Amino acid sequence: MPKKYVYFFGGGKADGDGSMRNLLGGKGANLAEMAGHKDLKLPVPPGFTITTEVCTYYYENKKKYPKELEKQVGLALKSVEKVIGKKFGDTKNPLLVSVRSGARSSMPGMMETVLNVGLTTKTIPALIEKTKNERFVYDAYRRLIMMYSDVVMEKAAGIEPKDDEGIRKQLERIMEEKKKEKGVTLDTELTAEDLKELAGKFKVRVKEVLGKNFPDDPFEQVWGGIGAVFSSWNGKRAIAYRKIEGIPDEWGTAVNVQSMVFGNMGDTSATGVAFSRNPGNGDPRFYGEYLINAQGEDVVAGIRTPAPINEAAKSEHNKGEKTLEEVMSKIYKDLFAIQKRLEKHYKDMQDIEFTIEDGKLWMLQCRNGKRNGPAAVKMALDMVKEKLISKEEAVLRVSPAQLDELLHPIIDSKAEKTAVVLAKGLPAGPGGAAGTIVFSSEEAITAAEAGKKVILVREETNPEDVEGMRAAQAILTARGGMTSHAALVARGWGKCCIVGCAAISVDLGAKKMTIGGKTFKAGDWVTLNGTKGIVYEGKLDMVDATENALLFDFLKLCDSVKVLKVRTNAETAADAKKAKSFGAEGIGLFRTEHMFYGENSEKPLFALRKMIVSSTTEERVKALNEIFPFFKNSIKGTLEAMDGYPVTVRLLDPPLHEFIPQEKDKQQIIADSIGITLDEFRKRGEKLHETNPMMGHRGVRLGITYPEITEMQVRAIFEVSAELIKSGKKVQPEIMIPVTCSVNELKDQKVIIDKVYKEVVAKTGVKKIQYSVGTMIEIPRAALLADQMAEVAEFFSFGTNDLTQMSFGFSRDDIGAFMGDYLNKKVLADDPFQTIDTDGVGQLISYAAELGRDVRPGMKLGICGEHGGDPKSVEFCHNVGLSYVSCSPFRVPIARLAAAQAAVKQKKAEAACNCGKTKAKKAKKKK
Amino acid sequence: MPKKYVYFFGGGKADGDGSMRNLLGGKGANLAEMAGHKDLKLPVPPGFTITTEVCTYYYENKKKYPKELEKQVGLALKSVEKVIGKKFGDTKNPLLVSVRSGARSSMPGMMETVLNVGLTTKTIPALIEKTKNERFVYDAYRRLIMMYSDVVMEKAAGIEPKDDEGIRKQLERIMEEKKKEKGVTLDTELTAEDLKELAGKFKVRVKEVLGKNFPDDPFEQVWGGIGAVFSSWNGKRAIAYRKIEGIPDEWGTAVNVQSMVFGNMGDTSATGVAFSRNPGNGDPRFYGEYLINAQGEDVVAGIRTPAPINEAAKSEHNKGEKTLEEVMSKIYKDLFAIQKRLEKHYKDMQDIEFTIEDGKLWMLQCRNGKRNGPAAVKMALDMVKEKLISKEEAVLRVSPAQLDELLHPIIDSKAEKTAVVLAKGLPAGPGGAAGTIVFSSEEAITAAEAGKKVILVREETNPEDVEGMRAAQAILTARGGMTSHAALVARGWGKCCIVGCAAISVDLGAKKMTIGGKTFKAGDWVTLNGTKGIVYEGKLDMVDATENALLFDFLKLCDSVKVLKVRTNAETAADAKKAKSFGAEGIGLFRTEHMFYGENSEKPLFALRKMIVSSTTEERVKALNEIFPFFKNSIKGTLEAMDGYPVTVRLLDPPLHEFIPQEKDKQQIIADSIGITLDEFRKRGEKLHETNPMMGHRGVRLGITYPEITEMQVRAIFEVSAELIKSGKKVQPEIMIPVTCSVNELKDQKVIIDKVYKEVVAKTGVKKIQYSVGTMIEIPRAALLADQMAEVAEFFSFGTNDLTQMSFGFSRDDIGAFMGDYLNKKVLADDPFQTIDTDGVGQLISYAAELGRDVRPGMKLGICGEHGGDPKSVEFCHNVGLSYVSCSPFRVPIARLAAAQAAVKQKKAEAACNCGKTKAKKAKKKK
Repeated sequence: MPKKYVYFFGGGKADGDGSMRNLLGGKGANLAEMAGHKDLKLPVPPGFTITTEVCTYYYENKKKYPKELEKQVGLALKSVEKVIGKKFGDTKNPLLVSVRSGARSSMPGMMETVLNVGLTTKTIPALIEKTKNERFVYDAYRRLIMMYSDVVMEKAAGIEPKDDEGIRKQLERIMEEKKKEKGVTLDTELTAEDLKELAGKFKVRVKEVLGKNFPDDPFEQVWGGIGAVFSSWNGKRAIAYRKIEGIPDEWGTAVNVQSMVFGNMGDTSATGVAFSRNPGNGDPRFYGEYLINAQGEDVVAGIRTPAPINEAAKSEHNKGEKTLEEVMSKIYKDLFAIQKRLEKHYKDMQDIEFTIEDGKLWMLQCRNGKRNGPAAVKMALDMVKEKLISKEEAVLRVSPAQLDELLHPIIDSKAEKTAVVLAKGLPAGPGGAAGTIVFSSEEAITAAEAGKKVILVREETNPEDVEGMRAAQAILTARGGMTSHAALVARGWGKCCIVGCAAISVDLGAKKMTIGGKTFKAGDWVTLNGTKGIVYEGKLDMVDATENALLFDFLKLCDSVKVLKVRTNAETAADAKKAKSFGAEGIGLFRTEHMFYGENSEKPLFALRKMIVSSTTEERVKALNEIFPFFKNSIKGTLEAMDGYPVTVRLLDPPLHEFIPQEKDKQQIIADSIGITLDEFRKRGEKLHETNPMMGHRGVRLGITYPEITEMQVRAIFEVSAELIKSGKKVQPEIMIPVTCSVNELKDQKVIIDKVYKEVVAKTGVKKIQYSVGTMIEIPRAALLADQMAEVAEFFSFGTNDLTQMSFGFSRDDIGAFMGDYLNKKVLADDPFQTIDTDGVGQLISYAAELGRDVRPGMKLGICGEHGGDPKSVEFCHNVGLSYVSCSPFRVPIARLAAAQAAVKQKKAEAACNCGKTKAKKAKKKK
Repeated sequence: MPKKYVYFFGGGKADGDGSMRNLLGGKGANLAEMAGHKDLKLPVPPGFTITTEVCTYYYENKKKYPKELEKQVGLALKSVEKVIGKKFGDTKNPLLVSVRSGARSSMPGMMETVLNVGLTTKTIPALIEKTKNERFVYDAYRRLIMMYSDVVMEKAAGIEPKDDEGIRKQLERIMEEKKKEKGVTLDTELTAEDLKELAGKFKVRVKEVLGKNFPDDPFEQVWGGIGAVFSSWNGKRAIAYRKIEGIPDEWGTAVNVQSMVFGNMGDTSATGVAFSRNPGNGDPRFYGEYLINAQGEDVVAGIRTPAPINEAAKSEHNKGEKTLEEVMSKIYKDLFAIQKRLEKHYKDMQDIEFTIEDGKLWMLQCRNGKRNGPAAVKMALDMVKEKLISKEEAVLRVSPAQLDELLHPIIDSKAEKTAVVLAKGLPAGPGGAAGTIVFSSEEAITAAEAGKKVILVREETNPEDVEGMRAAQAILTARGGMTSHAALVARGWGKCCIVGCAAISVDLGAKKMTIGGKTFKAGDWVTLNGTKGIVYEGKLDMVDATENALLFDFLKLCDSVKVLKVRTNAETAADAKKAKSFGAEGIGLFRTEHMFYGENSEKPLFALRKMIVSSTTEERVKALNEIFPFFKNSIKGTLEAMDGYPVTVRLLDPPLHEFIPQEKDKQQIIADSIGITLDEFRKRGEKLHETNPMMGHRGVRLGITYPEITEMQVRAIFEVSAELIKSGKKVQPEIMIPVTCSVNELKDQKVIIDKVYKEVVAKTGVKKIQYSVGTMIEIPRAALLADQMAEVAEFFSFGTNDLTQMSFGFSRDDIGAFMGDYLNKKVLADDPFQTIDTDGVGQLISYAAELGRDVRPGMKLGICGEHGGDPKSVEFCHNVGLSYVSCSPFRVPIARLAAAQAAVKQKKAEAACNCGKTKAKKAKKKK
């Protein structure tokens, strides 16, 4: 038997099916599935698919086809004619076809398409006779000439004209002249006669320019189209696209030849787009729009107002129009049944395109429909209730970005479409916000107290801006990256924020900012889309989806599937409670230094500064004693709020120098308070200055040189714990030592911790505090020697921010200078501070996780840092077997979803190939 | 048979031998070897060793001895008496013994010793009769009482007196009173009568304080001594020492009981110290000093001038004295034969102690003798010639520190002993130097031109000081660490340098510095020992060993043994030539940025600065074109000097910001030259500022964002290569891309390099330039993904400075704040910037080496950076199979030696246990 190169579909049959993507391409496989699957057998315009193997053959054999092809195409065409009851090239009832590409993986716009193939001087009169619509036929014909001469003939002639000199451009110019001559502006204003004349002129020009007549033989046309599609697989655009997307050149494309159907053949014809459920809110009723006597693009183009297909689809805009149900009730019934069948078959909401040609319904396309966040959540929950899908499947149906829509107010999408874009920056905090501009923290606070909505605009923010940032609706900065101060703080609060918006120029003195040429004063309105990083002029409307009760149902569903625990990073009782309400199962990162920022930090900060410039242990201990009560207070609320959930308290981490005030008067006050001169104060401050503070005297290094700093912190943690235990509360503090590179650091600090523990237990009389001591793994050496670290550390928390910095040698404050080029040139696929670098940093993490658990089986392993809320990174954490991720409170729901999705994906992958481990794990297995 | 706990030695026999260190301790094994080995059978004072097993038993059994012990000790004592012809406790010819500790590993001063055991009221008269020296006997007796009452009796009584109240202190005070009463100051001025009286008083006081009589039974004395030694194994000092040195507590100590011999029994007695070769210069003749009628300590104490043992040992100081050869020719002959035998037996120069008691020669100790650098080199070479040792053995006989003595002038050790120490700093550049102080680079240059020797004193140095640094004899800075600018530059030149000398305070304005209370002006003399980091007052004499011709013979010997190649880091033809003369086999690191420092850098630096502040590609290319000729010139000399040896040229590495001038006038000139305002210039400069420049926009990141920078450098390398090839020279440039973290960076740069190569070959018409393209591995991620890197890189050079920084998260500029504490608290064993951290950084290197060679078998692997000249690090590099190390020119000889030693050690280890791989290699093997 000769090899099968052509697969027919239509009339309730299909040679192929939906599983044959590799052979038939995505489009061909879908058409076969719709047409031929026993549960569907939809009225798909008949056609056939030429397989990707032909493409491969074509390129391996100097652009020749296999010899069986012509015969198989002929036979398939016969089958098409039979099903549709028209004949290709017939002078009475001619069949027109489209010729389209269809690769395994969608490559939108990268390859060629030819429509209306089969129109010739001989078939035109028959079609006019049949359609009673001369204008339609000549419009189709001039389109065919334009498309075909460009896509097939010019390419075949090997001409590579300049942009403006291609045949298509020339024909377009002829058409423009005609419109000018007629005094009209729209194509639709040209009459049948005009179009007929244009077709004639087009053919003359084609002959002049390309040296050949426009083919008047339908078979020559169809083979020309097929050749053009195969050729376009190796077109420049397609090659470039494949390179970027990593699609192998060997895959090749299939070609789909399908009969054309027309919705614009009078009032018995129509065309429409529908969804098996409402994509805007998830309402489970059939939903869609249609237009009588129209082509597909008319529905989208917005020239006529589409009508609702049924009552459920009525809106303010279209409620006056008649529904399809009313106008063509039989066809509506068929369509309704079809969409039900499709949803059942594909087990997801379907986006379908249909055309009614002269009273006959044709299904052109169906695919899983896009939907917004609230709709995605509702559909997922509904479909589980309907037993259409499993809960595992449901978890995969909502993307993290969709879930995020439910967590923040967002700009009304209609308003956003027409808004004036002022500038783009980095999307540092999600959601939307509108407000009047303020340029200082104080103004923000005052305005907020007066009930005004403001946007705080700064060059960059610093810890002293924190209160103003909290008061503002959103923050906009001219400088800084995704991990700048503003970005970190805003994300922690789930607050809208755009940073690094280089286009704006802030003049604090004059209280104005300029963007491009425009100047904005304090009090002017702007609107920010923090999810996309866009600044709009004026005040846009907001939509609030955050009150959606389904959110919590859906997250419960996620929890029932996920394995990974989700904790939060929090330093206040308020944040801890918020996160708990979002489902946090503990605190993975309590940063002790946060008590020195923001609200009520004045006194502890003053004491800290005294400590920093201390020159003797006595001075330092004195200052530490002053900090102590604040420290206790800062921990107590959070520990209490978490009520027995684990709370990981990280000991003081940042370089001390950053806390030293720059203002002379502040310096003077501190100097006075410890009895030194301003000069001496400055000398001590300068001594602390570091060339690369990120790799300087910080974290455990402070604890090694000044054991009294560790001692104070640990004493506070234990005393607070004892007090809470005495008052009947449960506590589970985990003491975490940061920036370690050697187990000896842990040993050194453990001695202090154990000593203080004994003292506190003796002093307070509590029997036992359930605590553990662990370490951050954020320095590469600690990861490499994790087996040693685990001899002392009872848990690891991977500090992926610093680990990424050290592994790449990237200072996250300084990557702005080159990260753009790195991403543009695809040197890196993602910003590694956004999405964990599984190849490098991930290798260290999985290696350390394994080493740690070798020494301490079942060891608790987590990550804290920005990656804890990034879905791709959460998936990685699940795959390498971490115990938990920790992220900012507003990312907790996202992390719960991502953790659930990771669990489902892993199960699926394991079921599919029994190899569901990451590269890292496999690498280790080899050892 | 009962277990053997006591090992006898003496009289040409020994129960044990030198291999039994674990059982007999180091001292016991050596005594057995000297006494009993068939080739030696030396006249060692007879004695016996109680094994370490007894110590273990003692602690496991509540401080009881095995029951067999007493009997075995008794028998051994009998054997001793037989050999020496004296009897323990005898009233006619009494034997006295010493009781000493002796662990496996030497623990100097940590355990107890009791001498003169056996002196009692009954044996004293006999000894006086025998020695005819009453004073000697009573002096020995009062010493016994002092030592014994302290070490044995007070401890046994369980008394822990305060510092000043111990029995020893009390007895010392009694003796002081006696001296006062007699009006004398020295112990030796007390007469026999005085000492006898003192002994009496001592015994009374002992009874009063300790409640017991001083034992008058010799056996009680000896068992008391034995118990005291065993007890001292668990004394506080010993435990602390073991903890620091990592000696296991279970090892225990042995006890050596040995008959005492006395060199101070009249003119037929003597004592001396001798060496089988001259330890000061390696002269192969027997060498040593002795004193008639003296005890061992008298030779060392320097009260009497010791006499030379033979003609060869005569010096200016002692040439008037009679030699031992003259005075006791028979004994001298015996001694001469013994030292020959010892050298042949131990195959090394021996340091021996001997005593002649009443005409009989006793050998007290022999060990491998310490020697200085020139002596070590000469001895090693001589012994190979004499066929005493193999060349492999010879290589191990010279330590890197000894070799270093031959490479720099050093302070005359006699002068140094009595010099006034002003301050201590970090030993940043080796050798010694004396000069007058200058405080500026200009003064240094002027003074040097006038032929003056000067020491450049600065707070810190910067690139603009380079010429002054070169002109000065040595550099002294108040700030900076071992890798500060001054340290790096000085080490590169092999110049004496002390940095981080915090005790000095420099006042540049007043041209003076103060140290402690003293003030030094410009022009005052100081002397620096850069090897130890000590600053001395005034001008000390120098010794120059660098002209030693044997150095090169010895290094040739090393080369015949080593496997690892040794390259150098150099950027000038002069340095390249110097290094080649020291045996460099190529250049492992040519830093292109060095052309912007130091001499003749003014013009290229000016052009570089223009490039840095360029805001468009055009501006940048224009500036690069200006740099181009300087760049070519800078490379040409070095490439030519290396004449076909490989030269690794590293593309521009440092962050650009550091080249921007701070001075307004310099800024103005640059601004003018590119036609921008000073304000604009400063803005551009500020934009380049980085928070953590070490992890900022540098290395390949510059090449990615500004491909034109790479292009200019590569074009210069190829054009210079082509020019040299055309003039008949050989060249082998290796282009090295720094600071890479992803193979995509290499791919990106490789495209540029290959393009430029084709252009240059086409332009110049040379057929081929033998070049390769590789990368630094200095970012942890690059090491982790070395297999990917090796797909493009043809060689790796491990940049251990940066790799250490990133692996530890240590900024080498900032470690000063905590490294001291880290080393003191033993958190780290070594400063990882001095000696490679084999556990962490080393793991990355060996992992990357393996990954690289998996992809590219036999791949060239090297290291550059400070570690390349550190012997321990060189050994590591050899062990992980690197191809070469690269270090500064003056370290090349050290590296050659270290490489040879590493090869020998590995061979030995492999021979010994067939497992001679490093931990890292073993870890890999497990994979």
